Amino acid sequence: MVDAKEFINKAIIEIKEDVGENKVISACSGGVDSMTATYLVHKAVGDKLIAVFINDGLRREGEPEFVVRTLKSLGINTRSIDAKEEFFKTLKGKTDAEEKRKAFRDKFYKTFGQVAKEENVKFIVQGTIKADVIETVEGIKSQHNVLEQIGINPQTYGYLILEPLRELFKPGVRTVARELGLPKEISERMPFPGPALSLRVLGEVTPRKVAIVRKATQIVEEETLNLGTFQNFAVLHNDKATGIKNGKRVYGNIITIRVVVSEDAVTATAKEIDYKTLFKIANRITKELSTVVRCLYDVTDKPPATIEFE
Amino acid sequence: MVDAKEFINKAIIEIKEDVGENKVISACSGGVDSMTATYLVHKAVGDKLIAVFINDGLRREGEPEFVVRTLKSLGINTRSIDAKEEFFKTLKGKTDAEEKRKAFRDKFYKTFGQVAKEENVKFIVQGTIKADVIETVEGIKSQHNVLEQIGINPQTYGYLILEPLRELFKPGVRTVARELGLPKEISERMPFPGPALSLRVLGEVTPRKVAIVRKATQIVEEETLNLGTFQNFAVLHNDKATGIKNGKRVYGNIITIRVVVSEDAVTATAKEIDYKTLFKIANRITKELSTVVRCLYDVTDKPPATIEFE
Repeated sequence: MVDAKEFINKAIIEIKEDVGENKVISACSGGVDSMTATYLVHKAVGDKLIAVFINDGLRREGEPEFVVRTLKSLGINTRSIDAKEEFFKTLKGKTDAEEKRKAFRDKFYKTFGQVAKEENVKFIVQGTIKADVIETVEGIKSQHNVLEQIGINPQTYGYLILEPLRELFKPGVRTVARELGLPKEISERMPFPGPALSLRVLGEVTPRKVAIVRKATQIVEEETLNLGTFQNFAVLHNDKATGIKNGKRVYGNIITIRVVVSEDAVTATAKEIDYKTLFKIANRITKELSTVVRCLYDVTDKPPATIEFE
Repeated sequence: MVDAKEFINKAIIEIKEDVGENKVISACSGGVDSMTATYLVHKAVGDKLIAVFINDGLRREGEPEFVVRTLKSLGINTRSIDAKEEFFKTLKGKTDAEEKRKAFRDKFYKTFGQVAKEENVKFIVQGTIKADVIETVEGIKSQHNVLEQIGINPQTYGYLILEPLRELFKPGVRTVARELGLPKEISERMPFPGPALSLRVLGEVTPRKVAIVRKATQIVEEETLNLGTFQNFAVLHNDKATGIKNGKRVYGNIITIRVVVSEDAVTATAKEIDYKTLFKIANRITKELSTVVRCLYDVTDKPPATIEFE
């Protein structure tokens, strides 16, 4: 168990030392990891930190507004960058999972790099945690915020990286967030991947497909809010399937519902959701989204699956 | 409720009258519909009937051998045609569901047409039932054995079609099958679509993908044998997803498990299978099929989904 007070005090001292009189930018996606890392750095360096929220067009319903509002309410200097068109442009035509992750990561770093130059900063804060580091080193996935671990020189992008949470697993991060007094919506927030909804649209990522999975995600989250599970989300398949809408045969979309129990994301089990809830989710999704004809429930643990589909 | 004795007697008289001194070929796929139709015609015209099993490479594990053996044990003249390569050739490169159905149907009729010419027959028996007719007229699917109803001239293919079960729904067919004394493996047999496993391989149909879905289907059928459900099967997606096998990240196959309760296939509900069984199926599939990393369970009713995916 992490001693949160001790961790925070030590981290603040280290961050102050590392940063000196330089300016810092924090990559703030809204998850517990990046918000905790950001607030920790804010505590250490105050106004030398600028939190940046990049609106990549891939966030959940209401998330951009929520993140920016929360950052400001914490007294953090905040900049919001609208990069929706650029992200969709870079993702256009890409269908391979790893290629999509790489495209997202490159655009992410380039966008941040620009802001970092404009703001004349030297450091970028990222919410990397221990599970990300382990999995990247083991080759499970290419995480967008662990460049140092995999030997890519962050200087290429024009800045150095601060990762104050890299020794913590998820439960430790939440303990620190609570100790820091972050709002509950942050400290208890479900994990959400860096490349966001782009990982939950199989095949090419388009604004239209993201809008579908965003709405399906909202429904899944609403209906599973009280389960206490680790991650609850929706995935839009590239495959289509036959269905019947208004008495006519249609060739429609498939949504998978994924709800997992996990401690640290390294392993996970599919949650035994009661069928009443599952059927309610499937009903809502196929009714509220006119193109969706089928809902599937993922019953695979990690391993052999991963939590996300890409 | 169908009076099976009366139905059989009436059908035999009508078939005799229609067929006269002509020869008849029966398209025998192994399902309760085609087997019952075939045996009914055999009762009516005896040796003037030749049952033809076309091995299209798309049948379930052990099915070709089972069908031919059963037909022979019923005393029916039987011919088995190996058309595996031709069917895969015609399906090659086709990814659209309706295009695949059409390709299957055309190849099916051409193959049968050839045999019909060789055998100098005038009639072909098909196991069309009422649900097929209704759905084709309503545009839900293009069934391969209801040409007459949708206005296609069967003469194009060189023969006339006999559909003795076209007034029956599925339970009526089973009652007739029992009354005819067909083996239980036939009278209680789960429905299986004409285009067989080609509908359960999303995207292009290849021998390799059919082998995967065939094995997954066998596992699903074995583990759900005693549920008393209407249809239990597996679908292989064209989409891929990430997973972990032997500690390494892989980009693997997705299988959907589909188990439905239905009376007549016109409507259906997803079965509330207990999770123990679902997890056992998922475990077996991901262990016994090295390329599969994920198993999903279809929780959608018909409507808005259909029973099959294509």
